[in-house]
Amino acid sequence: MKPINVGLLGIGTVGGGTWTVLNRNAEEITRRAGRPIQISVVADKNLELAQQVTGGQCRVTDDAFAVVADPEVDIVVELIGGYGVAKDLVLKAIENGKHVVTANKALLAVHGNEIFAAAQKKGVMVAFEAAVAGGIPIIKALREGLTANRIQWIAGIINGTTNFILSEMRDKGLAFDVVLKEAQRLGYAEADPTFDIEGVDAAHKLTIMSAIAFGIPMQFDKAYVEGISKLDASDIKYAEQLGYRIKLLGITKRTPDGVELRVHPTLIPARRLIANVEGAMNAVLVQGDAVGSTLYYGKGAGAEPTASAVIADLVDVTRMHTADPENRVPHLAFQPGQLADIQVLPIGEVTTSYYLRMRVQDKPGVLADITRILADQQISIDAMIQREPAEGEQQTDIIMLTHLAREKQVDAAIHLIETLPVVTGKLIKLRLESLS
Amino acid sequence: MKPINVGLLGIGTVGGGTWTVLNRNAEEITRRAGRPIQISVVADKNLELAQQVTGGQCRVTDDAFAVVADPEVDIVVELIGGYGVAKDLVLKAIENGKHVVTANKALLAVHGNEIFAAAQKKGVMVAFEAAVAGGIPIIKALREGLTANRIQWIAGIINGTTNFILSEMRDKGLAFDVVLKEAQRLGYAEADPTFDIEGVDAAHKLTIMSAIAFGIPMQFDKAYVEGISKLDASDIKYAEQLGYRIKLLGITKRTPDGVELRVHPTLIPARRLIANVEGAMNAVLVQGDAVGSTLYYGKGAGAEPTASAVIADLVDVTRMHTADPENRVPHLAFQPGQLADIQVLPIGEVTTSYYLRMRVQDKPGVLADITRILADQQISIDAMIQREPAEGEQQTDIIMLTHLAREKQVDAAIHLIETLPVVTGKLIKLRLESLS
Repeated sequence: MKPINVGLLGIGTVGGGTWTVLNRNAEEITRRAGRPIQISVVADKNLELAQQVTGGQCRVTDDAFAVVADPEVDIVVELIGGYGVAKDLVLKAIENGKHVVTANKALLAVHGNEIFAAAQKKGVMVAFEAAVAGGIPIIKALREGLTANRIQWIAGIINGTTNFILSEMRDKGLAFDVVLKEAQRLGYAEADPTFDIEGVDAAHKLTIMSAIAFGIPMQFDKAYVEGISKLDASDIKYAEQLGYRIKLLGITKRTPDGVELRVHPTLIPARRLIANVEGAMNAVLVQGDAVGSTLYYGKGAGAEPTASAVIADLVDVTRMHTADPENRVPHLAFQPGQLADIQVLPIGEVTTSYYLRMRVQDKPGVLADITRILADQQISIDAMIQREPAEGEQQTDIIMLTHLAREKQVDAAIHLIETLPVVTGKLIKLRLESLS
Repeated sequence: MKPINVGLLGIGTVGGGTWTVLNRNAEEITRRAGRPIQISVVADKNLELAQQVTGGQCRVTDDAFAVVADPEVDIVVELIGGYGVAKDLVLKAIENGKHVVTANKALLAVHGNEIFAAAQKKGVMVAFEAAVAGGIPIIKALREGLTANRIQWIAGIINGTTNFILSEMRDKGLAFDVVLKEAQRLGYAEADPTFDIEGVDAAHKLTIMSAIAFGIPMQFDKAYVEGISKLDASDIKYAEQLGYRIKLLGITKRTPDGVELRVHPTLIPARRLIANVEGAMNAVLVQGDAVGSTLYYGKGAGAEPTASAVIADLVDVTRMHTADPENRVPHLAFQPGQLADIQVLPIGEVTTSYYLRMRVQDKPGVLADITRILADQQISIDAMIQREPAEGEQQTDIIMLTHLAREKQVDAAIHLIETLPVVTGKLIKLRLESLS
């Protein structure tokens, strides 16, 4: 049978992995897809690298725009990343009637609405399993596997770098800066780790999952994003004493008032399966009204795990590409024109539980003052640790876990507590989710 | 848009759940599927129940054969179970050009080859996500999400009853019989629990996953099946001391000599995520050559979790039913005619690690005799516990974990060890998997 022809844009880590896996498993992939899937042209600015990886087995070029215009190419795989030239290439490929497979979470989170509209108009598919959680087929699970459900919330460890750092901080009791350097040395963190450690990468992925789960447009600009760079090792230890682990979670939740869309360090009960996801692994927990909790776990990055998702999309597109566009799985799970207009809540309107750590003078009446302020804001306390001051010390730490409260009320209480003369410095606030 | 019409066969637990969820989430499901999915007729021997559940909102009948012949019905949902009348109904529905959605693992594991051949011939779909691991979309993950991979092995906790019993035995240190009674009282085990506790149900599900993963026909009759009814609480305790948990796993593995297909109690390292799957929950661990390990976790049974999978299949069929049959996802992941003829290995040819417990007299030379026999069979020891005999006792337990060995050699060694005069009674053998 006639092979399907792929134009590969970018032969870096994931592009190289895609080349390798597609060739190594060609026989099984063909048996699954019904016809061979072959990369017929590779575009990369580094022509030498492209030639070296492909070993003369396909055409190489440094002109990606020629590939998206190539009449021989059926599917364009975009692995360049970023929202600059990648966006132009994807839109051009669509305009030329090519199907697109991409791993580019930033592009979809920021420009997805425009891209999917263009694809819809041209009747082509844009597939993006590799954009979220690497090799874990979470997009497929949300878009096809859980279609019976009203999805209630998703909570995911969707950035391997930060999960590696948090695991190391907990295991070895080390500070963030020390572990980050180690992660960079081991290749788990990039030279400029900002997107990972500040939660931006996780927010891109969360935005995509939120759109699919709730049938809403991509709204990355509304996401609340807080990373782990300011996380103190002592909070990981206190959390542990209270039976919790701290993970950088991407959380999106349906509420009567709107959708929550937030990335931040989160205390979760240590006995939950997802709390035991260690190192650079990813996991996504999905709560549906019929199915209950389901969890999806695996490698969220790396050459071959990500290639696994890219190629799964290639097989999907190959299997489906002759079907009428209206009989394909919709890009965002819901049929085009059926997206809902639900607002994303500002972080002040979010309701969750909180971990509060404050440094106080060891004097009578301190706890009474603090608890009075919390009570005035309708915030009730679920658990508390008060450290005995060390010999000769005048100050001590108080750690409180609250029941559910609205963030703006918690912030108001924090402001008042910080003005108490017996409280020293800033109060540390972390969010807590029971995930039940 | 014209609704798609479903004929529902059986309105018991899962049928009732399907009715409820399909009605409760009708609006979102329609937005996803592109047209309404409605149950237009229900068949159940218990007409009164059918009327009660459906409340006059659709036709009810006690004649299931009329439903599979009904020209108004587009998709038949078979939730009767077993291989008797269910088989006739499914084949009749296919013959009449209906698509079929079924949760019937026994039927597919035993008669799947015949059913899929008939469906292929008629160009209809037979969808069966609900047949394995309830609401977890594991069939979709294997058949579509991991198509890039050469699957190496699958290990699954795919029977909730036995996982509940094992969790309770470990937590409370109770014997199998005691916990089984408790499980029956709580509704986690049936009045006749044979299929669950003897591993037959897990073997049905494993057979289906094995076929999809490796592109081979269903071969339930070749599966090795061992349940948990003979498992002693002391082995759970010893395993714990050695850092392991015992789970009833369904394991299927590709080896150079053939495919392993086996269900049995298995020691697995306690630190593995899947070792921490407790209660009636299910989880499936899949090892692919590109993606590495991925894990899928959720509720494996129950009205709404199973309905979640049934309805996901209904949405899939609705989305795909106008596509050419050759452009649909193949029933067994690989294109028809592309199944491989790989033999299933008899259990004696399986290679794994072992846990051996034996009762011995506390005399010099005992250990030398035993280890000599093992060495002669090329079996090497990875870890050992020898209990100190209690005050006044003449006998003690020796527990050994072996490195990888071939089962027939282990059995030969066991036979020889049991003939030693210093060894009392039968030796206990359990299999151990590192899952790495």
